Amino acid sequence: MYDLIIIGGGPAGITAGIYAARKKLNTMLISKDFAGQAGNAFWVENYIGFKEIRGLELMKKFKEHLEKFEIDIAEFEEVEEIKKVKEIKKTNSIRDKSLNGESGFFEVRTDEEKYSAKAVIIASGGNPKQIGVPGEKEFLGKGVSYCVTCDETMVEGKIAAVIGGGNVGLEAGLELAGFCSKVYVLEFAPKVTGDEILQQAIESNKKINIIANADVKEIRGDDFVKEIVYEDRKSKKIIRIAVDGIFIEIGAAPSVDFAGNLVELNKAGEIKINPRTCATKTGGLFAAGDAADIRDKQIVIACGEGAKAALSVYEYLKKLK
Amino acid sequence: MYDLIIIGGGPAGITAGIYAARKKLNTMLISKDFAGQAGNAFWVENYIGFKEIRGLELMKKFKEHLEKFEIDIAEFEEVEEIKKVKEIKKTNSIRDKSLNGESGFFEVRTDEEKYSAKAVIIASGGNPKQIGVPGEKEFLGKGVSYCVTCDETMVEGKIAAVIGGGNVGLEAGLELAGFCSKVYVLEFAPKVTGDEILQQAIESNKKINIIANADVKEIRGDDFVKEIVYEDRKSKKIIRIAVDGIFIEIGAAPSVDFAGNLVELNKAGEIKINPRTCATKTGGLFAAGDAADIRDKQIVIACGEGAKAALSVYEYLKKLK
Repeated sequence: MYDLIIIGGGPAGITAGIYAARKKLNTMLISKDFAGQAGNAFWVENYIGFKEIRGLELMKKFKEHLEKFEIDIAEFEEVEEIKKVKEIKKTNSIRDKSLNGESGFFEVRTDEEKYSAKAVIIASGGNPKQIGVPGEKEFLGKGVSYCVTCDETMVEGKIAAVIGGGNVGLEAGLELAGFCSKVYVLEFAPKVTGDEILQQAIESNKKINIIANADVKEIRGDDFVKEIVYEDRKSKKIIRIAVDGIFIEIGAAPSVDFAGNLVELNKAGEIKINPRTCATKTGGLFAAGDAADIRDKQIVIACGEGAKAALSVYEYLKKLK
Repeated sequence: MYDLIIIGGGPAGITAGIYAARKKLNTMLISKDFAGQAGNAFWVENYIGFKEIRGLELMKKFKEHLEKFEIDIAEFEEVEEIKKVKEIKKTNSIRDKSLNGESGFFEVRTDEEKYSAKAVIIASGGNPKQIGVPGEKEFLGKGVSYCVTCDETMVEGKIAAVIGGGNVGLEAGLELAGFCSKVYVLEFAPKVTGDEILQQAIESNKKINIIANADVKEIRGDDFVKEIVYEDRKSKKIIRIAVDGIFIEIGAAPSVDFAGNLVELNKAGEIKINPRTCATKTGGLFAAGDAADIRDKQIVIACGEGAKAALSVYEYLKKLK
């Protein structure tokens, strides 16, 4: 029986692991990989302390830091189900009501094993939605990105395309217009769908070209992205445009089906938490990072949330003793 | 007129500065020093990515990271007053009500200058309360600490003393008991004052010695702390005990008098914020890190909060345009 099982090996999960281990919690971290979306970033320039570092290298440093501590790691395992097994007794937290709750323990079943713990942190991150065209995977980190804030400097002074004309896509377009010489925003529907205020801002910005009715077919390049190929859904013509970077902004969503009705989700499919403590609606179950209902998906923010969650677990468990 | 003024050069302020600069906000950061409490930590082992680094060295890296970006810095200046000068118009945020508000601009007066900005982030940190005895300052970072979670490994297997028998002191004592061979908890009053549940836990822990009626007089040592000297307030005897580390846990509080009634404070004197956006009760005024009402005072959490605050400011300003 572990004190804590952490699900996820991205920034939030690793930070939670380090904080839990330092508190001498008997902890297991389950991760299908040690990278998450952070590993997809070409250059990371906004994780404080490292002026410029490749996403994967940063994640390697994170993992090495974690391995310094005593913690069990189940790598390459994927969680399939969490169950709350048994109620033990009422607990009362001194400082935060959200750390109260029926205590008990959890069973976490992966594709390989079954583990038990008194508390669980879900830090399984978000998955950017993909468009599923040739070139998308191949050029990831080589001109294709799912995160403007992470990678906008890669297209400074150059031509960028945003795929997606919803709020997120339009915001990405506006932001890129501050950096790029030209920005295309491609939308599948006959018209962009983002909020009016954003549409107005987009239309009045001379650097931005909206291309509606665009059915993206392929991303092409050599070492790096060179062009985007789409079909104009009205004329049925195939059109190629030269670009230096492509931002796919059709949303991201965590996949936390494994938590069933132990958690409540917001409209984006993210786990609702108490933002001070990372507690979910189930006592002993916490969520941190991009899997949770937080505004901004950033490495340093996910780390902070992971630390919060682990310290909340520590307080929660103290009251069980 | 700046877009943003950040008050404070600790982890929260620096992170906010980096995020603001990357969003091309015209930003000024005012700091009386670039260290804050993080600079006091002997070793930092829980800022993810650096396995082990001295507090001051980490803060140097943070500052160098900040200086890579275009940002104005007013070092060695202390803020004396923030005033909201003028209301301009109502704004409406799409995603978060807490980013609405009467826009306007702020005047920030330091001991040397007066600056104006459309938004302000208060990230001026917390100041641990001091006991004010000889040796306290001299041995800071050499056995004297104000943060158990930061420095607990320095006393692993050794003897520690905690000064303060309130909740924070008792929690520190319990935590240290998991690491140390022996822990003294010194309390000025005739009896420790922390919550019952903590008192019981303390009393049943064989490693912990409570010393009530202790009026601490001096901290002594050579290169490192060696002993603590107190007067027993009942017997009036002077008593020395040998210790390897001393944790002063009588609370911490931000000093944010300069914000006047633009902010609302909690009982600990911390600025109340919307925990999702770092917005205060005044539109355009944000708070992040230890100056704000957050549960856990940790470097990586303060960084995350600084990033959040800057991204909230970015969205707030976008709606003003």
